[in-house]
Amino acid sequence: MSIEQLVSSLSSGRVFDLEQDRYVGAAIFPAHWPGFVYTLHRHHEVVEGQPRTSASGTLMMQEHSGTHIDALCHQAIDMEMYGGVRVDPTVQTPRGFTELGVETIKPILRRGVLLDVARAKGVPFLDAGYLITDEDLEATAAAQGTTVREGDCVMVRTGWGQNFEDADGYLAAAGVGREGARWLAARKPFLCGADNVAFDVPENVDIELGSLPSHVVLIVEAGIYIIENVQLEELSAASCYEFAFMCLPLKLRGVTGSPVRPIAISTDN
Amino acid sequence: MSIEQLVSSLSSGRVFDLEQDRYVGAAIFPAHWPGFVYTLHRHHEVVEGQPRTSASGTLMMQEHSGTHIDALCHQAIDMEMYGGVRVDPTVQTPRGFTELGVETIKPILRRGVLLDVARAKGVPFLDAGYLITDEDLEATAAAQGTTVREGDCVMVRTGWGQNFEDADGYLAAAGVGREGARWLAARKPFLCGADNVAFDVPENVDIELGSLPSHVVLIVEAGIYIIENVQLEELSAASCYEFAFMCLPLKLRGVTGSPVRPIAISTDN
Amino acid sequence: MSIEQLVSSLSSGRVFDLEQDRYVGAAIFPAHWPGFVYTLHRHHEVVEGQPRTSASGTLMMQEHSGTHIDALCHQAIDMEMYGGVRVDPTVQTPRGFTELGVETIKPILRRGVLLDVARAKGVPFLDAGYLITDEDLEATAAAQGTTVREGDCVMVRTGWGQNFEDADGYLAAAGVGREGARWLAARKPFLCGADNVAFDVPENVDIELGSLPSHVVLIVEAGIYIIENVQLEELSAASCYEFAFMCLPLKLRGVTGSPVRPIAISTDN
Amino acid sequence: MSIEQLVSSLSSGRVFDLEQDRYVGAAIFPAHWPGFVYTLHRHHEVVEGQPRTSASGTLMMQEHSGTHIDALCHQAIDMEMYGGVRVDPTVQTPRGFTELGVETIKPILRRGVLLDVARAKGVPFLDAGYLITDEDLEATAAAQGTTVREGDCVMVRTGWGQNFEDADGYLAAAGVGREGARWLAARKPFLCGADNVAFDVPENVDIELGSLPSHVVLIVEAGIYIIENVQLEELSAASCYEFAFMCLPLKLRGVTGSPVRPIAISTDN
Repeated sequence: MSIEQLVSSLSSGRVFDLEQDRYVGAAIFPAHWPGFVYTLHRHHEVVEGQPRTSASGTLMMQEHSGTHIDALCHQAIDMEMYGGVRVDPTVQTPRGFTELGVETIKPILRRGVLLDVARAKGVPFLDAGYLITDEDLEATAAAQGTTVREGDCVMVRTGWGQNFEDADGYLAAAGVGREGARWLAARKPFLCGADNVAFDVPENVDIELGSLPSHVVLIVEAGIYIIENVQLEELSAASCYEFAFMCLPLKLRGVTGSPVRPIAISTDN
Repeated sequence: MSIEQLVSSLSSGRVFDLEQDRYVGAAIFPAHWPGFVYTLHRHHEVVEGQPRTSASGTLMMQEHSGTHIDALCHQAIDMEMYGGVRVDPTVQTPRGFTELGVETIKPILRRGVLLDVARAKGVPFLDAGYLITDEDLEATAAAQGTTVREGDCVMVRTGWGQNFEDADGYLAAAGVGREGARWLAARKPFLCGADNVAFDVPENVDIELGSLPSHVVLIVEAGIYIIENVQLEELSAASCYEFAFMCLPLKLRGVTGSPVRPIAISTDN
Repeated sequence: MSIEQLVSSLSSGRVFDLEQDRYVGAAIFPAHWPGFVYTLHRHHEVVEGQPRTSASGTLMMQEHSGTHIDALCHQAIDMEMYGGVRVDPTVQTPRGFTELGVETIKPILRRGVLLDVARAKGVPFLDAGYLITDEDLEATAAAQGTTVREGDCVMVRTGWGQNFEDADGYLAAAGVGREGARWLAARKPFLCGADNVAFDVPENVDIELGSLPSHVVLIVEAGIYIIENVQLEELSAASCYEFAFMCLPLKLRGVTGSPVRPIAISTDN
Repeated sequence: MSIEQLVSSLSSGRVFDLEQDRYVGAAIFPAHWPGFVYTLHRHHEVVEGQPRTSASGTLMMQEHSGTHIDALCHQAIDMEMYGGVRVDPTVQTPRGFTELGVETIKPILRRGVLLDVARAKGVPFLDAGYLITDEDLEATAAAQGTTVREGDCVMVRTGWGQNFEDADGYLAAAGVGREGARWLAARKPFLCGADNVAFDVPENVDIELGSLPSHVVLIVEAGIYIIENVQLEELSAASCYEFAFMCLPLKLRGVTGSPVRPIAISTDN
């Protein structure tokens, strides 16, 4: 394919923007409070003899605020991260990690699929705190006629993305339970995302794996990245279950995640 | 084109990563000091009865640090921004702009071209403070056989990107002068980028337009976005002058710019 | 008096601590959100061959969070600050003020008085949003037998300091109205403080002076400093109406206020 | 003593300001970079129908920047802090310490003494990296005729405070060595301060105690607070060796130190 053709197919495709807006007061998990803060300190103003002016400010963000990808160093079990990397003071420093930081993620350009669990169940959004199971995912994939392949980026829709602007209520979202995560991991995707605050249900303490069991199954055991707070409403409305998925995490050296703006492109063929 | 074909052409193309790494101590223009700061406050640690642990921290960044895109609200002339938007307290607030903020930029998926001025001139990098002219750009395009088209994303290479890790020295980079900017603007690109700290030469005070004249010509007069601190060394080494260009600015509401990780994809046809 | 005597009288006096604790989640006026943020990124941890370890972190605070003093540059009327200092770009910069910043306040060691309005009115705390009048202050001073002298530091008690930990409720506190402020200004104190979020009542729009009229009367017109979020409960419980007042604002260059820990010392005789 | 007398003696004494100014670019130990950052985002500006305006901003400070006091939780040996408090996840959290934080320090109103080592040695300032010994302190006290008493606040002058504005050079200051610290600890002061970046000499690795040995001797072993970056030039010029010392650390909950503005008051008799 020529550059012309590639650019043409990209620009003629329908682009779905999967990032939630970033603004002061947006929903934030308490461990990551205050989330997004922006202040503008360089203002446009009338300055004698200087017609041009610049405005700029300061961003203060927890890397796990808004739509973001988790780096593999974000999680550990018994002080061991994915691939058997031990957490010790040479790896974990006050300014970040020397291994498995988010800067190690290459640009992501892959097949993406949507598993629209809420739609398959015929509800606008799943019940608060509901744990999506392997059977839910299997049934959703079957209903859609979607196959998850190795290397895919899998978006799981709970429907809670439409509640994002209800900053407190949104924190009660449904998420993926342990067996749901295992169903996903078995298909060897490159990453998994969900339209909720933690992919998991934050309060869920799994009898076998403890809190955030999907993080254990995907990140620590399988090296599969997770994206949270994805906006999937448009994809769902368009019944778009397969697409080109693109995500360009920032090369924040040693950081445990990155804010991202993932997109899906459909060619409508 | 089917999704399969699109994904296949994306993943089989060569991906050039145009973002410089983000790290404490990276080159930063004084107005945007301290630039990038990261601190890790949630550490993996041995906690009795809790095998799984999360690590995370806080990002503090000026939005104009590292590789970033300028929003149109970043610049004004006589308190007027692009499109005649007046700067007043309803538009410019302590928490950012209500118009022309970086969240208004759609995902960027366009034809990209490299104008490798340093190479055309046969030098590893242009002299410190050199102002690239219209003739330089014309000659570079001709030497390469490259045509800039309306809507393109144009990367101008000074060669200074290879000096990025020399935090102080890098600030003296060459840049695009007024007539160079006018040559670009006349071709109606969507955005222009350069491998230097300010696209312009910071100390250059143009006799006609004052400081940062290229910002005036491109952003204020023409609504053309600028990307700074782009990494163009690999593109140059590969003599890759045309490519698919992708850039996904974060939807930071009201902010004057966004850190980005632009990429170029070559299909090598 | 000798140093011995001075130290002896200081250390034998009763010290009242007038600062509210600073902690994540503390009451904060919306314009100053998020207020107090602290993250610990350098942790004590077991490091082989290095028995001693240091722990430290990062403070992120709006200067008007918690118990703090307002500098004179904090307020202006028609772009003019106290003493006729015009606000222009040489005085007001993105990194603070070149005149009237908080670093210009000398260490404060003065006579202090408490005007316990809530007590004089026989209530635990004044009604939400109540505007303290000149008559209230006059009656309180008379009931206590307290005279306000030139140069004093005057603490006005609404009783709302006891509600400080109710972060949302506290914002509805009573405060000093325009005529109350004029009564104070007429006595030429050095500073005035109150046990509420804004000295004024934030929602009060004065028919003559607009919002925050006490800030106008005290800071802009008279150059009298204001301290907010003072803790006055212990002073009140001890019926301590006169004391030595000490306050040591940080020399934050160009900043519009400083967090402070004011104290009152009573010698009980 | 009456309040009148106390206030009178405070206000008639000579006040020495022992805090260095806080400003962008001030000397900072690398572990605490960037140190002091301030940005003003709420500006005075012409707003129609609103004559009064407020200006304010955001402070971002490492708690160990500028003149500051170290809390006892700042240091540990083999994961144990002063008084045998073990560092574990219930004591050390991502948002600070639940024991020995700086909020536990009461207002400090004590006898202060200056040990002017530089002057006793007849030099403007001690050699870079010089380690002050027990003999130096003994000789200085003898030369001055000064006795250190239990509970005192002892300021040790290296002379480097006059170099504070040379941000890089200042980091090479002289400091107190292990035996100097032991000499001090034996006198049971309440706190010790010095006019340098770390009280210790940062590069000094003590053969017995490792790095920062004075921190070990004073903070961990003896529970004696340390103040760094004290400004002692005026005290020295006035030959003021005994004074009332006042310091009011902020009650920053769980934080490992606090910016402070210590003062000395001399009554000149």
